[in-house]
Amino acid sequence: MPRTAFIVSGRTAITAEMLAHSLITQFEDVTIRRIVLPYIDTPEKAEQAVAQIRAQALTDQCRPLVFSTFINAHLRQLFDIPEALMMDFFESFIGPLEQELQRPSGHTAGKVHGIANFEEYKNRIDAVNFTTAHDDGGMAKNLQDADVILVGVSRSGKTPTCLYLALQYGIKAANYPFTPEDFAQHALPKPLLPFRHKLFGITIEPERLAQIRFSRKPDSHYCKLETCQDEVAQAETLMLAENIPYLNTTRLSIEELSTTIMLKAGLKRRCY
Amino acid sequence: MPRTAFIVSGRTAITAEMLAHSLITQFEDVTIRRIVLPYIDTPEKAEQAVAQIRAQALTDQCRPLVFSTFINAHLRQLFDIPEALMMDFFESFIGPLEQELQRPSGHTAGKVHGIANFEEYKNRIDAVNFTTAHDDGGMAKNLQDADVILVGVSRSGKTPTCLYLALQYGIKAANYPFTPEDFAQHALPKPLLPFRHKLFGITIEPERLAQIRFSRKPDSHYCKLETCQDEVAQAETLMLAENIPYLNTTRLSIEELSTTIMLKAGLKRRCY
Repeated sequence: MPRTAFIVSGRTAITAEMLAHSLITQFEDVTIRRIVLPYIDTPEKAEQAVAQIRAQALTDQCRPLVFSTFINAHLRQLFDIPEALMMDFFESFIGPLEQELQRPSGHTAGKVHGIANFEEYKNRIDAVNFTTAHDDGGMAKNLQDADVILVGVSRSGKTPTCLYLALQYGIKAANYPFTPEDFAQHALPKPLLPFRHKLFGITIEPERLAQIRFSRKPDSHYCKLETCQDEVAQAETLMLAENIPYLNTTRLSIEELSTTIMLKAGLKRRCY
Repeated sequence: MPRTAFIVSGRTAITAEMLAHSLITQFEDVTIRRIVLPYIDTPEKAEQAVAQIRAQALTDQCRPLVFSTFINAHLRQLFDIPEALMMDFFESFIGPLEQELQRPSGHTAGKVHGIANFEEYKNRIDAVNFTTAHDDGGMAKNLQDADVILVGVSRSGKTPTCLYLALQYGIKAANYPFTPEDFAQHALPKPLLPFRHKLFGITIEPERLAQIRFSRKPDSHYCKLETCQDEVAQAETLMLAENIPYLNTTRLSIEELSTTIMLKAGLKRRCY
């Protein structure tokens, strides 16, 4: 029997969605349809949302799950109805925190995903600008400003990881491809030499790489399995010889790569 | 008196960090230092983390706050120590959900930020590739594959928003700048004409735009306040005349812009 989950928030609903997702994915054998209702910031909008939840309960013939992050306790209380299972993340934790810190919380909305701190926000935009300008070996002369430089063969997944590091952590992440010409030299590309302490490698299984390259340029030398095997082997040899730490992206998501790079490269986030 | 918050997880700690951030920012007058401990996935690592928390309690002379998202109940229990205030997200919500859904949860780690669903993962990488290729008017002929096309004057904030839409929602988001030449024609740029139903505008206060442009190209005509006032006024006139919905980015974060665009353009996320 399919169920419905409502994800409700006074602001973007991003936190509520992530928390709901983490819980829902623990029940794989239940089909749970999700309806996201962001910017529920007035009693009128809240009452409309409650009416929608009640209607869904009738349609589904069972209680919708409601995941919410209401800072405003009055709005939240409007959702305390017997027709739904209400799980509010603030309600559960803000009380124990207020007691521990011996003061009331601010009850201020828009702190999490708004422009709460302009300095942090600037760090983030600067990092995104830096990262897009330094994609795929671009503007190699400005690499001294990079926090980290991802290296690896073409299509190993450097770009999405760099973009994630920039957007989510405010990290200036350049990336620089290893090419067959570099392997012929048995040495790091020249522009990277002054920055070897900032290098972090990404490798990938040749079979996966061949698939990805095939979907970009089918019938090319570039996407042949032997080409991929050869390039990956040489890249790994080079990284080992040069003492560059590296990760295999084949079974790691962008988030897993990014958080591991943050940890292993000792990087500190510059924005939330 | 400064406090310490530990953010602990068996995986990336991204969910735990967001949860902690959303709670901590409600206590603005308390200085709370954050220590993130991801990939705590063995009893040995958990015991090390607990020792670090105990040591911090002594240093701080008060209890650290511990925010966690442990799927593994055994690991989580190791953190139930009197020297810390433990707030585990799963512990609080998985019980009520199991009861409501009348089945046990999977207790499977890596569901949230791992490659849980390869199809979704591919959507995401495809969206990132599309978005980087279609930044700033690039590859205008492939715009038929775009889910949304952001328009606005140069430096109004289109690129970071497009990247966020691609990375977080798997949305193929192109962007296309309005230039003084377009305004001279009093018409939409030709490549956009077949796709006007996909257009979403971004505008910005001229004073902010001048600041941003100045930091990129000081002493240019491009960054003069009058230039910015003129371009913004003409862009807004054009968007109104062409019935293009638009948002003002001056006080909106990337997340607020992105979630509002998703909502107003009726877009559905293609990945988690």
